[in-house]
Amino acid sequence: MSESQNTDGALLHVLDRLEREEEAALERLFRLLAIPSVSTDPSFHESCVAAAEWCAGALGEIGFTARVELTLGKPMVVGHWRAEPAKGPRPHVLFYGHYDVQPPDPLDEWTAPPFEPRLAEDVGYSRIIVARGASDDKGQLMTFIEAARAWIEERGALPVDVSVLIEGEEESGSPSLAQFLAAHGDEIKADIALVCDTGQWDAETPAITAFLRGLAFSEITVTGPSRDLHSGIYGGPALNPLRVLSELLAGLHDDAGRVAIPGFYDDVRAPSPAQLASWRALGFDAGGFLGDVGLSEAAGEIGFSILEQLWSRPTAEINGIVGGYGGPGTKTVIPAQATAKLSFRLVPGQESSKIIAGLHRFVEERLPTDAAVSFAHEGGSPAVGFDTGTAHFQAASRALEAEWGRPPVIMGCGASIPIVESFRSRLGMDSLLIGFALDDDRIHSPNEKYNLSSFTKGARSWARILAELSAIDGNATG
Amino acid sequence: MSESQNTDGALLHVLDRLEREEEAALERLFRLLAIPSVSTDPSFHESCVAAAEWCAGALGEIGFTARVELTLGKPMVVGHWRAEPAKGPRPHVLFYGHYDVQPPDPLDEWTAPPFEPRLAEDVGYSRIIVARGASDDKGQLMTFIEAARAWIEERGALPVDVSVLIEGEEESGSPSLAQFLAAHGDEIKADIALVCDTGQWDAETPAITAFLRGLAFSEITVTGPSRDLHSGIYGGPALNPLRVLSELLAGLHDDAGRVAIPGFYDDVRAPSPAQLASWRALGFDAGGFLGDVGLSEAAGEIGFSILEQLWSRPTAEINGIVGGYGGPGTKTVIPAQATAKLSFRLVPGQESSKIIAGLHRFVEERLPTDAAVSFAHEGGSPAVGFDTGTAHFQAASRALEAEWGRPPVIMGCGASIPIVESFRSRLGMDSLLIGFALDDDRIHSPNEKYNLSSFTKGARSWARILAELSAIDGNATG
Repeated sequence: MSESQNTDGALLHVLDRLEREEEAALERLFRLLAIPSVSTDPSFHESCVAAAEWCAGALGEIGFTARVELTLGKPMVVGHWRAEPAKGPRPHVLFYGHYDVQPPDPLDEWTAPPFEPRLAEDVGYSRIIVARGASDDKGQLMTFIEAARAWIEERGALPVDVSVLIEGEEESGSPSLAQFLAAHGDEIKADIALVCDTGQWDAETPAITAFLRGLAFSEITVTGPSRDLHSGIYGGPALNPLRVLSELLAGLHDDAGRVAIPGFYDDVRAPSPAQLASWRALGFDAGGFLGDVGLSEAAGEIGFSILEQLWSRPTAEINGIVGGYGGPGTKTVIPAQATAKLSFRLVPGQESSKIIAGLHRFVEERLPTDAAVSFAHEGGSPAVGFDTGTAHFQAASRALEAEWGRPPVIMGCGASIPIVESFRSRLGMDSLLIGFALDDDRIHSPNEKYNLSSFTKGARSWARILAELSAIDGNATG
Repeated sequence: MSESQNTDGALLHVLDRLEREEEAALERLFRLLAIPSVSTDPSFHESCVAAAEWCAGALGEIGFTARVELTLGKPMVVGHWRAEPAKGPRPHVLFYGHYDVQPPDPLDEWTAPPFEPRLAEDVGYSRIIVARGASDDKGQLMTFIEAARAWIEERGALPVDVSVLIEGEEESGSPSLAQFLAAHGDEIKADIALVCDTGQWDAETPAITAFLRGLAFSEITVTGPSRDLHSGIYGGPALNPLRVLSELLAGLHDDAGRVAIPGFYDDVRAPSPAQLASWRALGFDAGGFLGDVGLSEAAGEIGFSILEQLWSRPTAEINGIVGGYGGPGTKTVIPAQATAKLSFRLVPGQESSKIIAGLHRFVEERLPTDAAVSFAHEGGSPAVGFDTGTAHFQAASRALEAEWGRPPVIMGCGASIPIVESFRSRLGMDSLLIGFALDDDRIHSPNEKYNLSSFTKGARSWARILAELSAIDGNATG
C-alpha cells in the first residue's frame, strides 16, 4: 500500500470523526466566541490574554507544544506538532489565524448579545452561528484546529508537520508583528503558510485567493497664508489652500477614470489572458455587488470589468479631507492650510515608494505661487501574486474540489492582507489563502455570522488539504 | 449772523473743550474698557449688562434720555437727545456702535492684562491705548459720545437731533437685532445712521466706506455609497464622494480665476471709471497687504487690482471641507458622504438667492451617476453701495477734510457689515460709515490698541461732522 493510499484510507476515518464530533467542536468554538477579545479597546486586554491562553490550551490538549508568547501588545499563540524524527524531511506548514475581534458596536443593532454565541435558523442557509468573531476569525481558525484534532485523535498523528501562529492584533494593525517575526521567524518558518482569513466565491464554491492588491498611502497638507484669514477682508486676492487642494485632488484622475499621475501605470503587470477569461466566466453579479452599497454603476476605469478593477487594477482614493471650518453653520474663513489623506491600491509590479515619489512630483509641479506642500504618514506594501502552478497550490486545489464537488475559483482580493506580505518579505514564505467566509457574513458589523456548514465543511476541507499536502516532497519549496 | 456762521464759531469752542478735557475723556474710556464685556462667552454676561448700564449712564449724564433695553440676549442701549420743539424739523441722526468685545484669548500673548487699559509708548504712533476693545469698538464709540458731550457742555445743545443705539452682540452675530428693530425701529429711525465700526485709509488719511460686499453661503453634501466602504474591497468601482466633491469644487473657478458658475456675473454693477481711477490713485501697498499674511502675489481674478478684487468683485470661497477619516494616521475608507461649506462675496446688483440657485444648478448638472447632493445652512445678504453725492455724504466729507487737512478716501470694504444692511432693508435708512481704526490696531487679536490720536482726532472729527450736518435741511432724505 502506497503512502498516498494509506493517507486516503485514513482521511475517510478522519472525516467520519469530524461528523461524529460536530457537537463537541461547536461547544469548543462557542467557548472561544464567549471571550470578548477586542484588541483595539484597552479595556478588553485581559480578555485578549484569556483568548490567547484558551487557544494555546486547545492546541496543547491535542498534542501540540504550544505557548503564549508575550509581546508589547497582545500575546501571540505559537504551537508546533512534529512527527518523531526518523523518516527524513517531511512537509511542514504554518497555519495562521487571529483570535482578536472587531469591537461589537453598535451594540443596540445586535439581536442578541455579541459574546453570547448561539445557533440560529436562517431562511437561506439553515443553521448559522451568530457572535462577534463567528466568521472573522475565530470560526475560521477553529476549522483548522478541529481538522488537526480529528487527524490526531483518529490516527495519532498529523499527515504533515504543522506550526501554528495565532495573532491577537490583526484588527488593530498588528503593531507587534514585525518584532515577533524578527525574533521568532526561524521558529515558525515552514514550506508554506496556510492563511485562513478569506472567503469563498459563493456558498457552494470554494476559492483560493491568489492576487492581493498592495497599498501606498500619504497625507498631503497644502499651506497658503500664514494664518487663517477673514474671507471678507482677503477674499479674492488671497490664495485659498482648500481650492488648491481641490484642484490637485480633482486632477488625480482623467476623464476615463485613469490615475493621471505620470508613470503611475508604468510597472503594472496585467493578468494573463487565461486568468482574465476565467474571471469573465465566473458570472460575477455586478448589480448585486454595487446594489448592496447603494450604487448602480461602476465608477472606476472605463474598459475594465468590476472584477478586473478590484483584482488587477491600481487605484487612487481620497480617504479624508480636513480643512477650514467644520462645525455647525457658517464661518467665512480662508484657512491657512488644508489636508487630504490619500491611498493607492497597487497591483503586481508596482512599488509603493515609486508611487509615492510620483505623487510628490505631481503635486509639487502643480502648486501655484505661494502654496507649499508637506507630506506625512507615508508608507505601503507591494501587491502579492502567487504562482498557481506550484505543488502546494495544486494540492490544495485538489482537496477543495474533492470536498465541494467543484474546483476552487482562483480569486483576487482588492485589499492587502499584511501578514501575507510579511511572510513573503521577512521569511521568504509564500501563503495559501483559503477560507470559508461568505460575503454576507457581516464581519465587522452587528449580527456577524458564520454558516454552520462553513464551519463543518471548512474543517473537512482542511482535513483533506493536510492529506494532500503530505504527498509533497518536503524539500520542495512550493 | 447766519446759522452756519453761528455754528462755526461754536465749533471752535467745542474743539477747544475737547482738547482741555482730553484727560477726563480718557479716564471715562478706561472705565468702559475695564469691563470685560465678551458677548460670545456666557460667563461674561453680567459684564455685558454692566457695560450696557455704563453706556446708558454716560449718555444720561450729558443729557440724553437713555435706557437699557433688554433682549433675549445682551441688552441694547438706546438714547435720544432732541432740541426743544419749536423751530420745525431739524436734522436727526442715529449713531451706532457696540459695547461688546471679542474674547481676549490667547491671554498669554498679551503683554499686560486685556481689561486693564493703559497708555503705552509706540515707536511709530507715539501714545497708544492698549486693551481689548480699545479700537473695536469702545474707543470708536466713545469718540462720538465725547464729541456729543463737548457740544452739550460747551453750548448746551447738540447741533442736530441725535439718537444712539449701542449693541451688545456685534461680535456674536447680532441674534437679537432683528427682533429689536421690529419692535423699536420707528423709535430709532433717523435721516441717516452714523456707523462707527470701520477704519481710516491710513494714519494720516480719513475715509468713508461706501461699498460693502454682500454674502451668500451654502453647505453642500455629496453622498455616494449607502455606507462607508473599505477601499480595498470596493476601491475602483465604487464612487468616492470626496472625489466627486473635489471635482465640483475645482470646477468653481476657471483658469483666469473667474467663478465658473453660469450667470454668476450677470448682474454685477461695475464701479464707475471715476471711482476706479480714484482707487488707482491711492497708491495701495499691494506687497505689504499680501506680505503681512505670508503671500507674494494676488491669487484672484486676472486683470483686476487687489483693491478692485476686494471692493468691487464677487468671489467664491471654500470655507471648509469635511469628509472621510480625519484622525491621525491612515484609514482606507471610501466615505458615504463629504461636505463643503461655501460662501460667495457679492457686489451691488447681485442677489444672494439667485447666486445660490445658480450654485444648485451648477452642482446638480455635474453630478455623476449614483451621486446625490443636499444643501443646508443657506442664506445671505446683498452688497451695499452708497451714493457719494448726497448732502449727508458731502457734509461728512467736508468735516473730515477740515480736521485732517485732506479729503477722505472713498473706500470699499470686502466684508459685509450686517447692521448697515439691516438699517437699509428694515428701516429704509442709509448709513455713513466713518471710523478711525487703523489696519494695525490688532482688533480680535492680543494687544489690541487704538492710537491716542485716533481717539482725540476721532472726537474732533465727530464734533465737526455734527456741525456740518446741522446745515442740512431736516426734510432732506439724504
